[in-house]
Amino acid sequence: MTIIKKREKAVKLVIKIGRYIFDGSFDTEKISAYVKLFRTLKRDFHKIVVVTGGGEYSRNYIRAARKLGGSEFICDVLGIGVSHLNALLFIAGLREDAYPEPPSTLEELRKAFEGGKIVVMGGLQPGQSTNAVAALAAEAIGANLLINATNIDGVYSADPKLDSKAQKLKVITTDKLLKMVLDGTLLAGRYELFDPIAIKIVGRSKIPARIIDGRKPDNIIRVIKGEDIGTLIQPS
Amino acid sequence: MTIIKKREKAVKLVIKIGRYIFDGSFDTEKISAYVKLFRTLKRDFHKIVVVTGGGEYSRNYIRAARKLGGSEFICDVLGIGVSHLNALLFIAGLREDAYPEPPSTLEELRKAFEGGKIVVMGGLQPGQSTNAVAALAAEAIGANLLINATNIDGVYSADPKLDSKAQKLKVITTDKLLKMVLDGTLLAGRYELFDPIAIKIVGRSKIPARIIDGRKPDNIIRVIKGEDIGTLIQPS
Amino acid sequence: MTIIKKREKAVKLVIKIGRYIFDGSFDTEKISAYVKLFRTLKRDFHKIVVVTGGGEYSRNYIRAARKLGGSEFICDVLGIGVSHLNALLFIAGLREDAYPEPPSTLEELRKAFEGGKIVVMGGLQPGQSTNAVAALAAEAIGANLLINATNIDGVYSADPKLDSKAQKLKVITTDKLLKMVLDGTLLAGRYELFDPIAIKIVGRSKIPARIIDGRKPDNIIRVIKGEDIGTLIQPS
Amino acid sequence: MTIIKKREKAVKLVIKIGRYIFDGSFDTEKISAYVKLFRTLKRDFHKIVVVTGGGEYSRNYIRAARKLGGSEFICDVLGIGVSHLNALLFIAGLREDAYPEPPSTLEELRKAFEGGKIVVMGGLQPGQSTNAVAALAAEAIGANLLINATNIDGVYSADPKLDSKAQKLKVITTDKLLKMVLDGTLLAGRYELFDPIAIKIVGRSKIPARIIDGRKPDNIIRVIKGEDIGTLIQPS
Amino acid sequence: MTIIKKREKAVKLVIKIGRYIFDGSFDTEKISAYVKLFRTLKRDFHKIVVVTGGGEYSRNYIRAARKLGGSEFICDVLGIGVSHLNALLFIAGLREDAYPEPPSTLEELRKAFEGGKIVVMGGLQPGQSTNAVAALAAEAIGANLLINATNIDGVYSADPKLDSKAQKLKVITTDKLLKMVLDGTLLAGRYELFDPIAIKIVGRSKIPARIIDGRKPDNIIRVIKGEDIGTLIQPS
Amino acid sequence: MTIIKKREKAVKLVIKIGRYIFDGSFDTEKISAYVKLFRTLKRDFHKIVVVTGGGEYSRNYIRAARKLGGSEFICDVLGIGVSHLNALLFIAGLREDAYPEPPSTLEELRKAFEGGKIVVMGGLQPGQSTNAVAALAAEAIGANLLINATNIDGVYSADPKLDSKAQKLKVITTDKLLKMVLDGTLLAGRYELFDPIAIKIVGRSKIPARIIDGRKPDNIIRVIKGEDIGTLIQPS
Repeated sequence: MTIIKKREKAVKLVIKIGRYIFDGSFDTEKISAYVKLFRTLKRDFHKIVVVTGGGEYSRNYIRAARKLGGSEFICDVLGIGVSHLNALLFIAGLREDAYPEPPSTLEELRKAFEGGKIVVMGGLQPGQSTNAVAALAAEAIGANLLINATNIDGVYSADPKLDSKAQKLKVITTDKLLKMVLDGTLLAGRYELFDPIAIKIVGRSKIPARIIDGRKPDNIIRVIKGEDIGTLIQPS
Repeated sequence: MTIIKKREKAVKLVIKIGRYIFDGSFDTEKISAYVKLFRTLKRDFHKIVVVTGGGEYSRNYIRAARKLGGSEFICDVLGIGVSHLNALLFIAGLREDAYPEPPSTLEELRKAFEGGKIVVMGGLQPGQSTNAVAALAAEAIGANLLINATNIDGVYSADPKLDSKAQKLKVITTDKLLKMVLDGTLLAGRYELFDPIAIKIVGRSKIPARIIDGRKPDNIIRVIKGEDIGTLIQPS
Repeated sequence: MTIIKKREKAVKLVIKIGRYIFDGSFDTEKISAYVKLFRTLKRDFHKIVVVTGGGEYSRNYIRAARKLGGSEFICDVLGIGVSHLNALLFIAGLREDAYPEPPSTLEELRKAFEGGKIVVMGGLQPGQSTNAVAALAAEAIGANLLINATNIDGVYSADPKLDSKAQKLKVITTDKLLKMVLDGTLLAGRYELFDPIAIKIVGRSKIPARIIDGRKPDNIIRVIKGEDIGTLIQPS
Repeated sequence: MTIIKKREKAVKLVIKIGRYIFDGSFDTEKISAYVKLFRTLKRDFHKIVVVTGGGEYSRNYIRAARKLGGSEFICDVLGIGVSHLNALLFIAGLREDAYPEPPSTLEELRKAFEGGKIVVMGGLQPGQSTNAVAALAAEAIGANLLINATNIDGVYSADPKLDSKAQKLKVITTDKLLKMVLDGTLLAGRYELFDPIAIKIVGRSKIPARIIDGRKPDNIIRVIKGEDIGTLIQPS
Repeated sequence: MTIIKKREKAVKLVIKIGRYIFDGSFDTEKISAYVKLFRTLKRDFHKIVVVTGGGEYSRNYIRAARKLGGSEFICDVLGIGVSHLNALLFIAGLREDAYPEPPSTLEELRKAFEGGKIVVMGGLQPGQSTNAVAALAAEAIGANLLINATNIDGVYSADPKLDSKAQKLKVITTDKLLKMVLDGTLLAGRYELFDPIAIKIVGRSKIPARIIDGRKPDNIIRVIKGEDIGTLIQPS
Repeated sequence: MTIIKKREKAVKLVIKIGRYIFDGSFDTEKISAYVKLFRTLKRDFHKIVVVTGGGEYSRNYIRAARKLGGSEFICDVLGIGVSHLNALLFIAGLREDAYPEPPSTLEELRKAFEGGKIVVMGGLQPGQSTNAVAALAAEAIGANLLINATNIDGVYSADPKLDSKAQKLKVITTDKLLKMVLDGTLLAGRYELFDPIAIKIVGRSKIPARIIDGRKPDNIIRVIKGEDIGTLIQPS
């Protein structure tokens, strides 16, 4: 069931950091914990791309833009802008271990990734969630693994808040996940999960992806070591 | 049912030219007919963005790249490249009436559109169909209308090749269209139709969209004049 | 004493919007009032560049970056990023009256300004305040007037909070203002005022500049009409 | 007569792949053979730039653009676009051994080349053949050797199809080659050979260049090993 | 023999200013005379691109770079840089009548030219003279006329300094001019004249070109008015 | 008093080369001496950014632009252009040891610096001296040391030409230096010294800086070795 049972060589890894970490409180300890983790991974020769979401500030800017009569397009541009600033916070903490600025296209990511530093980036283009960006980034660099660090511990068969029989799934295929996203099983209150484009990209590129509880950064180490935590999304 | 009953002022219009026109035969008469049409629209003060698909050459490059072991990412890059060349063919014909090169980002489109010339563009980014690009372009410029010129005359209730009772729909909501796309009613052999992202963008930005038979370029004039042809996609 | 006694032709104008308006409350009414004002100015053929500061969100990002061990360089990059998002809020409100995105270099500003739309921009480069950017922008477009809309009504001979004899100056030369800034007369608690680079640029390019109370947007109209409000900064 | 008799250290090498390989059939075996060869060279520490021509698809696009009334300028832009797609095919095959995208300026080539990957590129600018690009690329990176892999086995004293006494030349100076190109000795039916700009660049930068039969990729190895095949073009 | 006998509408014009004007003396009167001339042309609705050469400073930089062991490539980059600064001098004088900066690619030229301002540019790429740039610029904008303002009054049948029977030619075909350039009839001491690429571009794009004595700026007016001065280069 | 008493590891170093070296004479021996020095430093694993000033040619271009009525903005653009050409001269000499072109933004510098080559750059933006650029560059790369190689041997307590009691200072704080610059103690005839922005950046980023006599390039080695020469500028 696990992807990488025994690690013999370093992985190429994309980690999506959900927006729960960017809640407007600027709790730098949470970010610091990730910074330390990323440094450890780099020291161990893993090659990492980190994709950051928008969060609270993104919502505030977008709400204001809407009140001012701004288009959905410009709302997306603002959200991308905030995710970019969040990426810069990680770069601030990573200092010399990070590529100096968030790439703004996938081509730029591919070039930045060559240099061996940790690349941190936000959103890219209107009409696209940062989850889709993470999947595209994984495809662009030929990642071995895509980790979606969110604020629940995996995909449930139903919304656990509404259905006491809801069970965490150990594995789910991209086709089945897509169906659950589209028929609303997952979307209610679980907005952070993979969106349709992200799922499609994961499916077509055969990149194993895992949704884990990102509130404990060590979970990322456990996944890399081959532990079967969270939910594995298996390309159909 | 029609969107624009009486035209009093010029429209801002995005036209997606399906890949049926780029079949490798380089039938310049088809392209010429569109060039003439676009010039007429411009002379009548309509502001136009044209989005071109990939077609035959795109398929050939992608097939070769796959054989060579190329990633899905690079296959998309090749498809975008060919759609870009197809855009340049229209620019070649439009000469001084066209913006001199296909924009490669939505921001660049927004700036190009300011100048009043016809802007012709292809795809933008891996993981995104040119239909999605057309919808994003419509949102980016605040279009009044999005026309998808394809090789059938609208959306059918079922695949007409398989189901003799299939009926052309005069109007369909974005929600319903999305459902049809996702449950496969439309996808079988009707690949050119709006994809999920395109439908989502049309829905959120409230841009009326119409799928028409593009093999008769005059259909575009008829839509602008307010005729109720093809299928109207109404934001839910 | 006033710069432009009788207006016969439209002015080229740079308006610096102080960060007091970006206090984290996202009071869109304040921004809306400015949006309306800018539209009126544009309709009357004035050509406008608006420069936005950072404000509350900028301070929050910078504080977090410092805690994470980020360099002063990256702190400035974050501040510039927030000022850029603030500029986008105005663009969201101005819609088609604004140039579609904030220029990120002075060269880009010069090209954007050609098109006749309102150009809104934030900071440009580390080591430079947005007041300096406003002065450089004024120089770059050959502005007739630079207005610094801040939260006090002009330059005082001393800090009015500390010295009851402090008097508002109707006019001050750039040399004298520079001296006051440098010897600390102004800096204490009046951080928003022109910085040394801004003053130097205003001086060398002979652009009349005025510091006014921006909390009443109509003050901008009054200055353009030739009223002698706030403090006039006269190139030495 | 040979350039590099005994190889002690790795060469910096530009290889121009003639358009004969891009004949519209997408014979990926031919491309694969080159991909393997380039990988071998890289493994042996040679640093390689590959320049691809346009070929069949280029001709088709240009013919269509001309019919549509397009300028010579845009025809060149289309040809460059196709050569760029051909470069991407090699990049698709080379995967991680290639720099991720074709540089679009010589400055970008210089930066890309620093990274040690195989750089593959197409044309750069209207008015310039891809042979000229190859020569400029050689100059830009300070190449030790420029190989023009074409579909004949060297330069002949006359057109072998017309003159039975035509002899393959083992070596020719740039001055003499330029004269032959200009007086038409070579151009008749031998379009692929070095053009005047390419010859001029080779001459001024003293880069030894060799025209070889590219239909046998191993010929490139033989040249690097010091074999005297094809025709050596010696800077005058 | 003249190209444009009666002028009824404005021309699109590329003017190459030879390097004789950039002799290191910075004689601003010469430049001022041209600035005035260009303004007059613009006022009369002519659309102008000005291409500037390098001159004395270019030669000094290149000589120094050679002494330092720099490549021919970097020598060309330096020459382009100086021609760019020379273009900026014209822009300094033209102020608001000029596009604010010299375009650095032909695509950028095409976009800049849309705006109706005078576009001034220098060289573009190593391996290319500014005469070639002028011809490419003429092709890129679809110019009606290309004027090469140099320091002799036309093309002579032989070098007038060496051959007392040398006669100024009123007209010459591109083929013949190419031949004269290549066999050295013109190159001896007449370095400023059209180079092979420039001639080839003029030939293929059917742009009438004229070599005139640029030391009298009014000659440009005379050519536009249809006077038959200097030498007309007629596409073969 | 010295900054780096015992060198155990390589330093990250920014060296500002004053304009005294670019006096229009193109004395390549002076430049060669620096080229050799930089190579030695690189071989010893020091990481270097070199910032070049404008000098004689800069002054000539600016004088001409002023005569032509050019703005202060464009004068600065010309000065930046010349400093860029001066940077290219060093790149010409350093050949493969240099990053291939001068970065034109601080972000580009940060990326260029990653590659381990010597990065040479000129000015960046109007309104900013190359001394300010050097300080910003030092901050951007996190330099251990900033050396200002000028044509005097340090900061004096007064102008030595005017005051026989003037003494060279071994160390000065940024606050005190700023005061001296602003009250004119230093500016009279000592234009090359650190300007206010440069001093402010050095102060806030805590980068030790040293003003030394650059006419003897070996002084740079001496500083790196820990000798206490010139004047140390200590962040307050």
